[in-house]
Amino acid sequence: MKIAFKKIIVTLIIMLGTAPVSADEGMWLYNDLPRQLLKDKYAFEVTEAWLEHIQESSVRFNSAGSGSFVSEDGLIITNHHVGADALQKFSNIEHDYYRDGFYARTRKEEKRCLDLELNVLISINDVTDRVNAAVKANMSAEEAFTARRGVMAQIEKESLQKTGLRSDVVILYQGGLYHLYCFKKYTDVRLVFAPEYQIAFFGGDPDNFEYPRFDLDFCLFRAYENDKPVKVEHYLRWNSNKVKEGDLVFVSGHPGNTSRQLTMPELEYLRDQSFPYKMQRLHSLEVMLLAYSSRSDENARRAKKDLFGVQNSRKLMQGRFEGLLDSSLMMQKQADEQHLRASVAKDPNAEEILPSLDRIANAQQIIAHNAQQYSLLEAADGFNSTLFHIARTISRAVEEKTKSNEERLREFRESNLESLEFQLFSEKPIYDDFEQVKLAESLTWLVEQIGYSHPLAQKVLAGKSPGTRAAELVSGTQLKDVAIRKKLYSGTAVEVEASQDPMIKLARLIDSDARALRRIIEIQEEINHQAHAKISQARFAVEKTSSYPDATGTLRLAFGTIKGYEENNQAVPFQTTFSGLYDRAAAHHYKPPYDLPPCWIARKDKLNLNTPVNFVSTVDIIGGNSGSPVINRNGEFAGIIFDGNLQSLVLDFAYTDIQARAISVDSQAIVEALQNVYNAGELANELTGKNRR
Amino acid sequence: MKIAFKKIIVTLIIMLGTAPVSADEGMWLYNDLPRQLLKDKYAFEVTEAWLEHIQESSVRFNSAGSGSFVSEDGLIITNHHVGADALQKFSNIEHDYYRDGFYARTRKEEKRCLDLELNVLISINDVTDRVNAAVKANMSAEEAFTARRGVMAQIEKESLQKTGLRSDVVILYQGGLYHLYCFKKYTDVRLVFAPEYQIAFFGGDPDNFEYPRFDLDFCLFRAYENDKPVKVEHYLRWNSNKVKEGDLVFVSGHPGNTSRQLTMPELEYLRDQSFPYKMQRLHSLEVMLLAYSSRSDENARRAKKDLFGVQNSRKLMQGRFEGLLDSSLMMQKQADEQHLRASVAKDPNAEEILPSLDRIANAQQIIAHNAQQYSLLEAADGFNSTLFHIARTISRAVEEKTKSNEERLREFRESNLESLEFQLFSEKPIYDDFEQVKLAESLTWLVEQIGYSHPLAQKVLAGKSPGTRAAELVSGTQLKDVAIRKKLYSGTAVEVEASQDPMIKLARLIDSDARALRRIIEIQEEINHQAHAKISQARFAVEKTSSYPDATGTLRLAFGTIKGYEENNQAVPFQTTFSGLYDRAAAHHYKPPYDLPPCWIARKDKLNLNTPVNFVSTVDIIGGNSGSPVINRNGEFAGIIFDGNLQSLVLDFAYTDIQARAISVDSQAIVEALQNVYNAGELANELTGKNRR
Repeated sequence: MKIAFKKIIVTLIIMLGTAPVSADEGMWLYNDLPRQLLKDKYAFEVTEAWLEHIQESSVRFNSAGSGSFVSEDGLIITNHHVGADALQKFSNIEHDYYRDGFYARTRKEEKRCLDLELNVLISINDVTDRVNAAVKANMSAEEAFTARRGVMAQIEKESLQKTGLRSDVVILYQGGLYHLYCFKKYTDVRLVFAPEYQIAFFGGDPDNFEYPRFDLDFCLFRAYENDKPVKVEHYLRWNSNKVKEGDLVFVSGHPGNTSRQLTMPELEYLRDQSFPYKMQRLHSLEVMLLAYSSRSDENARRAKKDLFGVQNSRKLMQGRFEGLLDSSLMMQKQADEQHLRASVAKDPNAEEILPSLDRIANAQQIIAHNAQQYSLLEAADGFNSTLFHIARTISRAVEEKTKSNEERLREFRESNLESLEFQLFSEKPIYDDFEQVKLAESLTWLVEQIGYSHPLAQKVLAGKSPGTRAAELVSGTQLKDVAIRKKLYSGTAVEVEASQDPMIKLARLIDSDARALRRIIEIQEEINHQAHAKISQARFAVEKTSSYPDATGTLRLAFGTIKGYEENNQAVPFQTTFSGLYDRAAAHHYKPPYDLPPCWIARKDKLNLNTPVNFVSTVDIIGGNSGSPVINRNGEFAGIIFDGNLQSLVLDFAYTDIQARAISVDSQAIVEALQNVYNAGELANELTGKNRR
Repeated sequence: MKIAFKKIIVTLIIMLGTAPVSADEGMWLYNDLPRQLLKDKYAFEVTEAWLEHIQESSVRFNSAGSGSFVSEDGLIITNHHVGADALQKFSNIEHDYYRDGFYARTRKEEKRCLDLELNVLISINDVTDRVNAAVKANMSAEEAFTARRGVMAQIEKESLQKTGLRSDVVILYQGGLYHLYCFKKYTDVRLVFAPEYQIAFFGGDPDNFEYPRFDLDFCLFRAYENDKPVKVEHYLRWNSNKVKEGDLVFVSGHPGNTSRQLTMPELEYLRDQSFPYKMQRLHSLEVMLLAYSSRSDENARRAKKDLFGVQNSRKLMQGRFEGLLDSSLMMQKQADEQHLRASVAKDPNAEEILPSLDRIANAQQIIAHNAQQYSLLEAADGFNSTLFHIARTISRAVEEKTKSNEERLREFRESNLESLEFQLFSEKPIYDDFEQVKLAESLTWLVEQIGYSHPLAQKVLAGKSPGTRAAELVSGTQLKDVAIRKKLYSGTAVEVEASQDPMIKLARLIDSDARALRRIIEIQEEINHQAHAKISQARFAVEKTSSYPDATGTLRLAFGTIKGYEENNQAVPFQTTFSGLYDRAAAHHYKPPYDLPPCWIARKDKLNLNTPVNFVSTVDIIGGNSGSPVINRNGEFAGIIFDGNLQSLVLDFAYTDIQARAISVDSQAIVEALQNVYNAGELANELTGKNRR
């Protein structure tokens, strides 16, 4: 760790000077690729057919993550940790598929996921002009926000009606562009194969975000329609050759969030308020989950996915925070912004920059002022309970559905209701004891944050301690019963208002406060969007280089080369092998998190130990890219992204390729394991196309 | 957990009404015992001989905790978790005595502790009049504080010179009384026996503060003088009979801290500010320690004692916070205070009460305002590093030693220097990597709390991230070398000022800020002491009942009965047995923290499984009582306190005996285990007196 910290900084100093896009930087829009750069640097020509093929082979996991089709029969590969949500949901005290893995030897055995929705991007349309036309120059920020939300809901509804496709207007360049994304949607998704948690996440928290690594972080689903596997036109062929150092590779996936185009006040807000809050929130959650898990194997099973998520976020947040606390990063960001401000004098296109920066600074102050309560109430950090979320969704839905499509909170827009209901009526397991522990911890957090005497704390606790209050809420609610959810959801607002269900009452109790906070934040975000749009336009005009927007969970194409790096004056090789996996397990005496599943011990002799397991590349990725295919020049599946190294955590703020690396599972490891550890030769054949006619 | 929360509250409602002392309440001063109560309720007559015997058999562990002499050859028993500090300090990568236990089969093998000081209380003298006489009525709070600190240092120095005994003036009743405690001091203390961590703390964090329990939480030391075991006149004989439900028992030990006599503003400060801060601090520490520990067995070993301490505090804090967030507790406290205020009208002795309460409220505001920075700087939450503490002690010592005894910071008073140097020059192991991780985490905490832009954060970080800064401080300092510590300590203030050691420079960098904060808090505490003294006097006069001061780490005698309780309408038996231990381990498949050491598996057949392991009693205890002997009517050793149940955590604020219980290891379990698991029959004989002439 210590070395990692030091090295990150050295790296940043070197690379931050290069202002626009350099090296292998960029999470590119599919409709705005750096074709010339790829041609010049890599002699790679992007064709429309190639692009369409990759795009439609790419899959978005709505549980957060990426994946890709890898057989004509609708087989989809993603990370084990992306599939985790589904794995956890159909596990129970008898069968822990999340921990022990799963293999459907026949199609019939493939297990249908409870509430997993997958999306495949079919088309992109620029609707910036139409969105901006709805927002008149003389509108207040509040009116502008309402108008913009309205026109977006309208565009989405029209598109859904016209195409039948899931239709989302996405915001790019912090408000510079609005694109309409249309998706083919799959809601009958079945689990085909998952390895054991222990081999997927070998090395656990200590090895997370580190390299060299030895993780088999993949699993396989299949998309169905009409109870039959879908036949897909676009899927990635398995790579026929081994990857080599220096190979050009592409990554197609859904990076979730980056902060590269943020202004100084926005970055300072992250450093001074948002990250400290989030770090502390994560610490409290992690301690609660660990304490709960330590009580029994069954508790540990129930909390496993949440714990993975929290620990992953904590390590990520720590690296990002450490980056922001390094003055060299912020000084470079400051210098970049000074440079932008200075350009005003030189270029008439830049005149909007200064007032826009001021507007952002101002909006950011208001956001900062309301952020804590927003996090507690609207983001529900104070109400960490699945049952609470169900209660809130129902009580808001019945109210929102009485409004016009344009006027609704965005998640209740008509075009989104089907997806929302799919989640709301999921038969996923809910455990009373776990709900209670989570809710008690979050109510305690609420009180810690705003103070016991705050009217909000008073009304939420109603004179009881957090533990007692959580117990009465969880034991009193009937929302575990999906039939009751459906009945309330399809009822009227008046009926829900009259409900005596304690969780519904709690959701209603804080709803006007929560909505008011959301309104405040949304309006300031509208101001930010407008200001960032002006800055983006000025930047395009001034810099005249091709660029890419900050990540927002939309499909992007990134590229880079497979490449090792140096650390402590030692070469870190570009790939690891099974042999290294066994060595590392032995060095740690096979003790968790370095233990190996029994079949990996038993079958060691069957394996080619020289098979590569993981490799690193300079591709520009971030959280959300998990599960993205790594694609070679031939458009073949060469591996799957599952992590970045510690040095890559600052990619949130700026790209670097000195030491920052994306980490992938090698396609060869997957096939080798399926064949020789799991006796899943048929599945391996489906992947490698040996079954293909 | 949920049930525990609920029950605590029910309990409190019932018992809080009873204002002064009732039932088995009380952590009594040795020179102010409720003799009449013991006579009336238990037909027990306290004789001077009995009292002196118990007092001089009781031992204070300066590493925090209690113990007692249990053989004429200076054998001392305490908890494993009290001995942990010593066990951790002489463990290393080859020998982990803390985890694996230790048994010296001969005197020669007894292992000398690196820096363990034990104290035995020899005499108590009331010096209240002399202390108060030094504080004149017309003095400002600042002058009063200085005068009081001065006279206390003077009394201690005189006493040390006269008696040769360690001499401490202790503050009782929040300033109502000042007593001079004189201690016989042992600094050559050797480890004789410790069981494995796993049996001492069977059930780990999940079972901590819970009951039924099955922990063998004890270890044995021996006091030496002139390289020979001391011959002690007073030691506890092993009990010859089994304990029974209903037995009267006494507990002699050093309860650390209670908050029963606090006023409303002081309690509200705990609830609204102090506890939330501490909870979050502990969460951050726990996550850091767990993440560090998970990297390797050796890391886990290095962090083990710290981790135990943090998890123990976290669970304790959670229970206490939950108690304070329950409105019924605070409402009762409020009612009690109203009752006190109302007494003003009825009794002329009470006229000082109202202005005193106002002064406390005022002082508490100032304390609250400065508490965060005080915690970060003076309590060094922002500098969690052994090397930093050494640096601070040295840099302050050279400065303080130039002042008169009366004017020094209290820890540098002449009578304390020998103990301070004993700690400062300890050869305890210090691990660079662990120091670095701890310091990085605490510097991050500092920044999270006061913000990156705060001048203090700026000067501490010096433009570097916490990780980088911690690395440079730890790798740069030379203070691991005790010879260098000694050289600096014996040098002049000017020499230390000129030192280029980065840790010394850091300590000096924040010293004026830290001292200023300490000064502010100390002055407000002086105001509180004066005000509480007035309230205590008025209370004595009004209530005219015998009472006991809040716990402050001084020797106290408590009493109660061995007694089960009810939970969920089920009887919880007063004792557990070895048979239950094996059942619980089996129920959890012997998985940590329910695993048993190999010898406990191997020797199961040799054990009498009906031997009682743990028992509960109504005795009034709190943290610091760990290791206290449980003594029967005959003055014999019947067991050793090691924990309280969850329902006892509110004892911090008010006594209850409905469900709150102290948990002890039964003396029989100790002998049975020594004889039949550890082949330590000779040691068992020394305890039971079979060796005695």
